[in-house]
Amino acid sequence: MGAFIVEAIDGPARAGVLATAHGEIPTPAFMPVGTKATVKALHPDEVRALGAHVVLANTYHLHFRPGEDVIEELGGLHAFSGWSGPILTDSGGFQVFSLRDTLLAVDDEGVTFRSVYDGAPERLTPESASEIQRRLGSDVAMCLDICPPADATREQHAEAVRRTTLWAERQVGLPRAPGQLRFGIAQGGTDPELRRRSIADVTALPFDGFALGGLAVGESRSEMLETVGWAAPLLPADSPRYFMGLGDPEGILEVIARGVDMFDCVLPTRTARTGSALTGSGRLNLRNAQYARDPGPLEEGCGCPACSRFSRAYVRHLVNQQELLGLRLLTQHNLWFTLRLTADARAAILRGTFESFRAEARRRLSGADRA
Amino acid sequence: MGAFIVEAIDGPARAGVLATAHGEIPTPAFMPVGTKATVKALHPDEVRALGAHVVLANTYHLHFRPGEDVIEELGGLHAFSGWSGPILTDSGGFQVFSLRDTLLAVDDEGVTFRSVYDGAPERLTPESASEIQRRLGSDVAMCLDICPPADATREQHAEAVRRTTLWAERQVGLPRAPGQLRFGIAQGGTDPELRRRSIADVTALPFDGFALGGLAVGESRSEMLETVGWAAPLLPADSPRYFMGLGDPEGILEVIARGVDMFDCVLPTRTARTGSALTGSGRLNLRNAQYARDPGPLEEGCGCPACSRFSRAYVRHLVNQQELLGLRLLTQHNLWFTLRLTADARAAILRGTFESFRAEARRRLSGADRA
Repeated sequence: MGAFIVEAIDGPARAGVLATAHGEIPTPAFMPVGTKATVKALHPDEVRALGAHVVLANTYHLHFRPGEDVIEELGGLHAFSGWSGPILTDSGGFQVFSLRDTLLAVDDEGVTFRSVYDGAPERLTPESASEIQRRLGSDVAMCLDICPPADATREQHAEAVRRTTLWAERQVGLPRAPGQLRFGIAQGGTDPELRRRSIADVTALPFDGFALGGLAVGESRSEMLETVGWAAPLLPADSPRYFMGLGDPEGILEVIARGVDMFDCVLPTRTARTGSALTGSGRLNLRNAQYARDPGPLEEGCGCPACSRFSRAYVRHLVNQQELLGLRLLTQHNLWFTLRLTADARAAILRGTFESFRAEARRRLSGADRA
Repeated sequence: MGAFIVEAIDGPARAGVLATAHGEIPTPAFMPVGTKATVKALHPDEVRALGAHVVLANTYHLHFRPGEDVIEELGGLHAFSGWSGPILTDSGGFQVFSLRDTLLAVDDEGVTFRSVYDGAPERLTPESASEIQRRLGSDVAMCLDICPPADATREQHAEAVRRTTLWAERQVGLPRAPGQLRFGIAQGGTDPELRRRSIADVTALPFDGFALGGLAVGESRSEMLETVGWAAPLLPADSPRYFMGLGDPEGILEVIARGVDMFDCVLPTRTARTGSALTGSGRLNLRNAQYARDPGPLEEGCGCPACSRFSRAYVRHLVNQQELLGLRLLTQHNLWFTLRLTADARAAILRGTFESFRAEARRRLSGADRA
């Protein structure tokens, strides 16, 4: 819809810019997850300083705590959280469908489930998911869709595609926050016919961007990548393409190579909270005794706030003693690493050297460089 | 011994400067506690930005985790923790004597106890407490003393005073880290004769400063203040006077008024982690529902990093959702408040208006200003 410009293509890979009401997002873009209106362990200024151009927030959690009414009254998500850049909100659907114990019923009108906060029954509809996001005031709102698990039957996938289309049609014209973009989502699992049908249905509607949902939910990595490989190019070339729920270093390289522009995942932040650092040559578990007296940074040559100041020995001490600064430093490092990998991929696309960049990064990530 | 200069006196209250190997400490000085070589929830740059001139670290905890050998190998506490300013280390004695379940035996040579980390028996002596602090490389080392509980018998207090003197004599000449100062500690509880004897014994030795230990350990506030009132002036006027383990706003005003120069406490940081903010007109429990939609800062007019940016409603949301940023923001606010109160007291002493400052601050803290 004019908000997205493709600056360069390099094979299927693309470099672009998505303009939003709160600033531009250079793509490919990794979106750090700020589930509850805070990227865990970080201050919004730190998130910005790490190189993030957009963060994600979760409609499901914010609806229950503190509630979209509170956030709207406090001036919307940006004012509430102190993050002044672009924010994408999911629809809440992923949580509703993935927390299967709390799912009560799905029909053509919406979905009924129990709140994970207090067990109270709750109803989410295309209209309410859209309205919550309008009141949150995000820059990109996602459609409510049906996200079946990878082990769903073909019939379940077909039904999910049908309802996802039905709901997309109902959401495309609903009221938005000022300047808010709305993305449609295609389902269909890894089934070629269903996925193609869902893409055809959703891309026929005037959304500002399109997401591949229902992938990376349990199917094998090779099935997932094969699907992205033929499905991403079916999405409109002049709209941003968003792969929902992916953020491991190898995966980022692979989906960019297949034409994806945006992706998000809790992996970098969650990995930090387990005491591990992401590096260009694999993961580093700081709890390992070998780092107890290691004066080096988490990753040699890294310019992140943790590596430019603190030793592995100190971070290990903090992690072992459950000191909050340890979680912060590892979170900063892991996001810096992920955002830098994505920015480097973008630079390579702009130079037309993405394939050699990807091959070299993959070689290093596989541990081939390790002593 | 010459490292301390008294700049102004205002009644018993004093303003001074303590010179250390890592910088000057303007007094009165509140010392934030960084038990395990980190002020909980904060980055050392943040601690500095809040106005702290010195932090405290705990010999007991650092001895066990990660061990003084590790810290020495990594360049000492300053290099290890990233805090480049003055550091005071306690002796470990307070933990040994206050964790009573783990205390095994005390004799004239030292104390035997079980580690809280793994239950292994451990021995701490005046010599080992001093040596650990030498290897940690702190700027001010504290003597190992005997700290009996407030409900100890007079005989127990007398024995504590005797051993504290014995140990002080053995520690005063032990090897130090480069430029390291060493403070003696007087015991004696609230018993005038024992406290006077301990002060006379310890101040006869050439320490760089003197502490009142064994107060604020269970006796009443009025007994404590009465004791400080006559005991602090018995400490040498040309040396810094350190009250161990006090940091509530009211208490700070009272011990400064009685001639104390330095004090420390986990209260501001621990209070933050319970979800409460210290303010000039009393505490604020952010969990209270009344703050759910409150757009105001934690404290009106406060210039701390939390108040200058975030609402009570957001901090409350973070606290309720156990988000780490909430602990950080409250810790920043509470330390800012405590450090500012102390700095304001110092400024008042330099102006010769401490008494009116104290009266006004006390009036506000009592809640007299609250609507």
